[in-house]
Amino acid sequence: MELTQALQQIQPSYIREILSDAQAPGVISLAGGLPDGNTFPISLMEQSLTSLPERPALFQYGHTAGFAPLLDYFRKQYQLLDHHQALVCTGSQQGLDLIARAFVNPDDKVVMEAPSYLGALQVFGLAQANVISVSQQVDGPNLEELEACFAHQAPKLFYAVPDFHNPTGVSWSLAVRQKVAQLCLQYDVTLVEDVPYRELRFKGEMLPLVSSFCPDQALVLRSYSKIAAPGMRMGVVTGKEEWIAPLIKVKQCADLHSSVPMQAVLLDLLQHPNFDQHIVTLRSIYQERYQCLAEQLRIKLPQGCKFNEVDGGMFIWVTLPECDNFALAKAALKNKVAVVPSTVFYQQGEKITPALRLNFTNATVEELAEAVDRLVTVIKSECGVM
Amino acid sequence: MELTQALQQIQPSYIREILSDAQAPGVISLAGGLPDGNTFPISLMEQSLTSLPERPALFQYGHTAGFAPLLDYFRKQYQLLDHHQALVCTGSQQGLDLIARAFVNPDDKVVMEAPSYLGALQVFGLAQANVISVSQQVDGPNLEELEACFAHQAPKLFYAVPDFHNPTGVSWSLAVRQKVAQLCLQYDVTLVEDVPYRELRFKGEMLPLVSSFCPDQALVLRSYSKIAAPGMRMGVVTGKEEWIAPLIKVKQCADLHSSVPMQAVLLDLLQHPNFDQHIVTLRSIYQERYQCLAEQLRIKLPQGCKFNEVDGGMFIWVTLPECDNFALAKAALKNKVAVVPSTVFYQQGEKITPALRLNFTNATVEELAEAVDRLVTVIKSECGVM
Repeated sequence: MELTQALQQIQPSYIREILSDAQAPGVISLAGGLPDGNTFPISLMEQSLTSLPERPALFQYGHTAGFAPLLDYFRKQYQLLDHHQALVCTGSQQGLDLIARAFVNPDDKVVMEAPSYLGALQVFGLAQANVISVSQQVDGPNLEELEACFAHQAPKLFYAVPDFHNPTGVSWSLAVRQKVAQLCLQYDVTLVEDVPYRELRFKGEMLPLVSSFCPDQALVLRSYSKIAAPGMRMGVVTGKEEWIAPLIKVKQCADLHSSVPMQAVLLDLLQHPNFDQHIVTLRSIYQERYQCLAEQLRIKLPQGCKFNEVDGGMFIWVTLPECDNFALAKAALKNKVAVVPSTVFYQQGEKITPALRLNFTNATVEELAEAVDRLVTVIKSECGVM
Repeated sequence: MELTQALQQIQPSYIREILSDAQAPGVISLAGGLPDGNTFPISLMEQSLTSLPERPALFQYGHTAGFAPLLDYFRKQYQLLDHHQALVCTGSQQGLDLIARAFVNPDDKVVMEAPSYLGALQVFGLAQANVISVSQQVDGPNLEELEACFAHQAPKLFYAVPDFHNPTGVSWSLAVRQKVAQLCLQYDVTLVEDVPYRELRFKGEMLPLVSSFCPDQALVLRSYSKIAAPGMRMGVVTGKEEWIAPLIKVKQCADLHSSVPMQAVLLDLLQHPNFDQHIVTLRSIYQERYQCLAEQLRIKLPQGCKFNEVDGGMFIWVTLPECDNFALAKAALKNKVAVVPSTVFYQQGEKITPALRLNFTNATVEELAEAVDRLVTVIKSECGVM
């Protein structure tokens, strides 16, 4: 049976495909975007989980938009405007997919920073969007490029990860946030603001959402995979009602609604008096690991390799001298350290910066130090640098 | 922001929209396809649910295809051929959506029986398929029509609900099953066999799956919403590997994977020594309700109204004299009984048989008797019959 034209264009996710190799005995994985399983707030969810059998109503069909008490919580917690609404998703990945299916016709123009989140490249690829890249700088997208793109190409959406970008870790400055919001309003481009790493800031102050400067021009995707637990598949998309309503229609087709027991457990967790402390602890654990990885890289990276400091999130982006970074990642896996080559974060035909994405949240400090040793050995031999 | 052309064609689900009205105090709902919440096997899931906090690994990211021990169980339980595979879905609704997204280009031909499952009409509508209807008889699709359609129109898929069809309750005979499989093989049409009600047979013997006669020409969708609990959103699609692999690629985009804790609880339930007894009990409860509803209808339905006996499932299909069945359903809701008018089960422009779908699984025998009184009053006044 022939595949759809849309699907024929999609490559399977390199990251998900190597996850099994990356889990082989002895391999230290800096490849996935996995939170540390030991940090999951299981103890804060324990009472909720064990009381599920006493709440049989949670096991019946639910409303497509989500479990009503959870929607109420989101409305208050995120201070939604009266004409805005929340839609619970099976992970924020689903929220992004629903947005593409509701609003992106084949050849519609969607803007992203390059390099880009792989899951978004896949979603917009499957929607057969015309994805336009703008380059990324240390404090966000290149604004001149972005304005020229908005002005001359009239894109429909701008997909952005302003807090600790995946894969680069870049966090947008306040000035960039304000300017991007203004450009979205001026050129009538809808901002899709994806903030899965927002709460994982371990340095500096949390900055306003870009969408806070253009609430009616934006859809916001939040994830509970990093601060609660990814296995539960919980996310939410918020925005004005007239844009959420079509997403609900698509979600009816997609899965009717998300798991109600999982929604109830998420709500109990978010309302737990110790949840804020859990986030504080999580940040501190990840900060320690980041500092270890950064320090090791500073000491050991050979000439021609560079990385920028990050203030949070899960990733360090190491740029390399000219080399086949895909071959490098494979050689690294043979040397028992898994990393992701930059190639996968670009569209076909784009100019690729040779680089590696290193995750620092799912390995201990001892493992991170050992991983850098193994990686540096491979970089030196593959890139011919000292 | 303009909707996609695909979405502009989709009507929201009447059934899901009236669910809130149907839940108003005093209304007896025969409208939804809801199992009875009191039958949920909560006690059989209790140990599994309460032990979730001891299994933190379930809360990490999982594989897109599903939780490995659950996939192993499906392979054995459903006796999958060596070159076949299972993919866990967020409800079988998602399985259907993934099939459409992987294999149905705009204008590709998909065959369904008319009337049709609304969720499938929505999915194939969103895929912009060219949906071709064949009429349904008491023992399955009209085979002459079906063969003519296969021969002259070369459709890609035939979507079928052979066990206790939604909305009509029709169950295909063995001869029809064998013939349809043969036609699918002969004309190279892929059978999508959707069997959510298969285990809810309370009369006669379970017949072989249609796909058992053409395993390499079929994809099978199973649901755990009727025999476990719908709130968990658990389903599975099985078929040959080369057709499951593309579904996995689409599922990566759609939601990465389904909730792992829910998959683990489902596996524990399916393996529980008392699970088979749960199904026996469920069948007996639903049989009693069916017999009550059927008896009431036999006694009270006015002239010109008819229904066929069913051997299982969740629905009775009552055909009516010529009338505005949409107006009738609305009048019934005012008279505090919720039913679904046949209109919603047909594509736009199709010849509609005036009828109502009555669910018998989510009301007590007392409520069913009262519901028929209320409904008959409305039928008499709206259709002008005695």
